[in-house]
Amino acid sequence: ACRLPGYASHQVGVAEELTNVISDCWFQTLNAWKFPGGLSELGENIATAVREVQEETGVCSEFLSLLSVRQQHDQPGAFGASDLYLICRLRPLTYSIDFCTEECLRCDWLPIAELARTEETTPITSRVARLLLYGLERGWGAVDLPMETLPAVHSGRFYQLYHRGLPLA
Amino acid sequence: ACRLPGYASHQVGVAEELTNVISDCWFQTLNAWKFPGGLSELGENIATAVREVQEETGVCSEFLSLLSVRQQHDQPGAFGASDLYLICRLRPLTYSIDFCTEECLRCDWLPIAELARTEETTPITSRVARLLLYGLERGWGAVDLPMETLPAVHSGRFYQLYHRGLPLA
Repeated sequence: ACRLPGYASHQVGVAEELTNVISDCWFQTLNAWKFPGGLSELGENIATAVREVQEETGVCSEFLSLLSVRQQHDQPGAFGASDLYLICRLRPLTYSIDFCTEECLRCDWLPIAELARTEETTPITSRVARLLLYGLERGWGAVDLPMETLPAVHSGRFYQLYHRGLPLA
Repeated sequence: ACRLPGYASHQVGVAEELTNVISDCWFQTLNAWKFPGGLSELGENIATAVREVQEETGVCSEFLSLLSVRQQHDQPGAFGASDLYLICRLRPLTYSIDFCTEECLRCDWLPIAELARTEETTPITSRVARLLLYGLERGWGAVDLPMETLPAVHSGRFYQLYHRGLPLA
């Protein structure tokens, strides 16, 4: 279940939030809670999030929305290229945890409020936990970027587009 | 000014909206208005948008916010990898147009309402024009994903993070 990317310049990794309670990992190098996530494989899309959650935690889930985009440059392991990470909100379909011991030391469901409060985490995890708390209080429409599929006129292919919700035309 | 990417798996192209009026191109293959944009070079970040607008249109601008993320798979020219495109909102600093004739046949400032209405465009351009109209009517806070810089705890490096605005902590 633990893997190296076969091919990447801009890596698209995906982390996930699970509604109400959150599946997290306690990493050896950090001693910090963070969301499960990892790199897309070639041709993979946002479904990466669902696969990575299952591989790292054993939890099955489905995609709900995009929450945030993270960009970092000159990251170790990114082969000198910049790193683009999509942070998604997922709905859990199962709850029992069977985690990848090569990737993390602990894995558990945490209340979002606890994750937003703890100092045993990274600045970005903390920020996303606050974003989730805000969504819980104000409705997910305040934080979600829904996914829509639109046609590419010249090729007959389709795009996935994420942006703030619009009122119906 | 016209270029092929030297290295790419996930391409990060960037298109832009310019507040109130929009700089657009009429492409030979499409006969359609679309936003200027192109591929990031290695190590480049969101500043790609500013560079590409200047190369394609001659207009100088500065970054304001991220508006949308587009993902497409198996795109021609993407070397078999999926394609990730960040759509940004920019503020123009200059207005006179000097466009790249290898990349487009026409280039002009269009009122956003006209771009949202015309059929001589692509579905995604049309959609982003509607998103901009909504931002003009309701305030940019309704559509913007502001950029913030957060520290990476383990490396001393920094991330750029984009998500819906949060109330002050």
